[in-house]
Amino acid sequence: MRVNGVSYRTVWMEDGAVKMIDQRLLPFRFEVGSLRTHQETAEAIRNMTVRGAGAIGVAAGYAMAQAALAAPESGFNGAMNQAAALISGTRPTARNLFYAVERVLEEVEAASGVSAKRMAASATAQAIADEDAAAGERIGEVGQSLFGDSTTVLTHCNAGWLAFADWGTALAPVYRAHRDGKHVRVFATETRPRGQGAKLTAWELSQEGVPHTLIPDAASGHLLRQGQVNVILVGADRIAANGDVANKIGTYTLALLAKAHRVPFYVAAPTTTIDLNCPSGDRIPIEERADEEVLWTTGITEDGQITRVRTTPEGTRACNWAFDVTPAALITGLITARGIIKAEPKAIHAIMRL
Amino acid sequence: MRVNGVSYRTVWMEDGAVKMIDQRLLPFRFEVGSLRTHQETAEAIRNMTVRGAGAIGVAAGYAMAQAALAAPESGFNGAMNQAAALISGTRPTARNLFYAVERVLEEVEAASGVSAKRMAASATAQAIADEDAAAGERIGEVGQSLFGDSTTVLTHCNAGWLAFADWGTALAPVYRAHRDGKHVRVFATETRPRGQGAKLTAWELSQEGVPHTLIPDAASGHLLRQGQVNVILVGADRIAANGDVANKIGTYTLALLAKAHRVPFYVAAPTTTIDLNCPSGDRIPIEERADEEVLWTTGITEDGQITRVRTTPEGTRACNWAFDVTPAALITGLITARGIIKAEPKAIHAIMRL
Repeated sequence: MRVNGVSYRTVWMEDGAVKMIDQRLLPFRFEVGSLRTHQETAEAIRNMTVRGAGAIGVAAGYAMAQAALAAPESGFNGAMNQAAALISGTRPTARNLFYAVERVLEEVEAASGVSAKRMAASATAQAIADEDAAAGERIGEVGQSLFGDSTTVLTHCNAGWLAFADWGTALAPVYRAHRDGKHVRVFATETRPRGQGAKLTAWELSQEGVPHTLIPDAASGHLLRQGQVNVILVGADRIAANGDVANKIGTYTLALLAKAHRVPFYVAAPTTTIDLNCPSGDRIPIEERADEEVLWTTGITEDGQITRVRTTPEGTRACNWAFDVTPAALITGLITARGIIKAEPKAIHAIMRL
Repeated sequence: MRVNGVSYRTVWMEDGAVKMIDQRLLPFRFEVGSLRTHQETAEAIRNMTVRGAGAIGVAAGYAMAQAALAAPESGFNGAMNQAAALISGTRPTARNLFYAVERVLEEVEAASGVSAKRMAASATAQAIADEDAAAGERIGEVGQSLFGDSTTVLTHCNAGWLAFADWGTALAPVYRAHRDGKHVRVFATETRPRGQGAKLTAWELSQEGVPHTLIPDAASGHLLRQGQVNVILVGADRIAANGDVANKIGTYTLALLAKAHRVPFYVAAPTTTIDLNCPSGDRIPIEERADEEVLWTTGITEDGQITRVRTTPEGTRACNWAFDVTPAALITGLITARGIIKAEPKAIHAIMRL
């Protein structure tokens, strides 16, 4: 997607370094970070320089490739297992992270000889990134079939291209429709505490020229009551085998509101987000992050300084669950690169066999 | 209620000046503002130096008293009508504002002679304040009957003592129960965009020593799914004759979540918040405030400066509805100083005749 008119991916690899748009600085500064080792890349996942299910997976794949390039010939397998454990330990919820680590590890194990293993790791990491971008583009085509000539979308958090290698999931149909000349406008929730809607979705949409309006998270009920929203589109961090979806905290509430107001509620995700080994949503671990993220808000001052301010009395504590689980029964459908399906076990298993 | 151990009201009158705790500076600084004229007091209502349905009403009553003291003998009635229009125009949603203005105006009209009119205005304004504080205290007694020995409450925005002359509404039962030695703890939503939960409710509860935890607005669904919350208590800015309630944006969503999780959902309010002339919620005007409140967040920096930061890209626009309407059908009951009643026309009319 475009940044000031130039095409970028969110994460890529160049001369052994993992490059990524530093999402902690957006929308105030556009900077590309360069991580020289798999440890640095893992830390960038943990500290949310890169975030979003797909982008985390792509970064994790590249981190595994870095580990393979650096691992000594003797003890190669042990080093790779260590790297896999380190990278897998950075974030607990997004399925794509584990998918990428496991897939690179399998390809490395299947190759014979350290040189072939290194090549396999790099090729697999690149394939994960390319497939992620292709899935996003395809999700855009599949998803825009839901759009009329003029469509108002409500989305939550950022499931745009910054959350993936390119295109994104929930926003991919928006970009596709917009490029195809359909009228589409977006209401984006702020998405406290980190403000991915206010910071990333608003930035992405403005870069692509898509009309959009921000709302506080608590305003979605009032917005839906007004009958202006045609469809709610969100992403997913993990989809269980029964169709339950873990996504950014607040998604469950939106799904409940959608049902009350008979607004279609779709979850867009690549198949790499589906976890057939996870039977249902109550088995998905929900990351609890430091309450500092709730107590302090980062922004830019009137004189251009990126600063954080505390919005609470000193000593106040907060809960900071990063995700919640939306039961499959509240989901109108899953938009995947292989088509739109119902959020139910039979359809999910069928699509995973395609 | 107590501030650093000293008892305060939120708004009071002293030597012709209206004094009020400056709620724009809390929780970072505790300062008492002094407004010398009814115009200054009206501006303090508009700019939210004072906010909260009851406190706005009390301030409006005192502003009318100030107007009466300053109005010239010739043209007294015209000056009072002008003042009433100015004060009524500051905020559109809270019923208490209009109640206070109308009540002072009626008493002024009933008195004969300018001197008697001035005394009537002052006495009526003081009565409104005293009745507001007494209603809060009584709501606390009535409402705590809902509490067991150990109760977890979820509340939204600030319907504590800062929103009234004293005690508050939604938080009054919490304070009563806490002072009576019951175990009570509170989950408070941040309440974007102005953060009254993060800033005011957290501050109030900490001053009174009530255990509490902040959550982002979007986290209420996940919290309720965990089954930890026994009751949701919120305030009201206006209650229509059919039991529909206008309250801080996000209240409607909480009510819907409460129903889905079978958690009792109560609205606590003095009878001055009930508007029998308003047949239903869709007739309540919903204030739309400047989107700057959503785009910029005020807090305190690590070195103690009260500063605002923009959390969005430059040029982003936002919707900023201050209130939403919760349909009566989602409300378990109304907690008033005259008892707990159903949110339905018959019960509401009956209690207004008490």
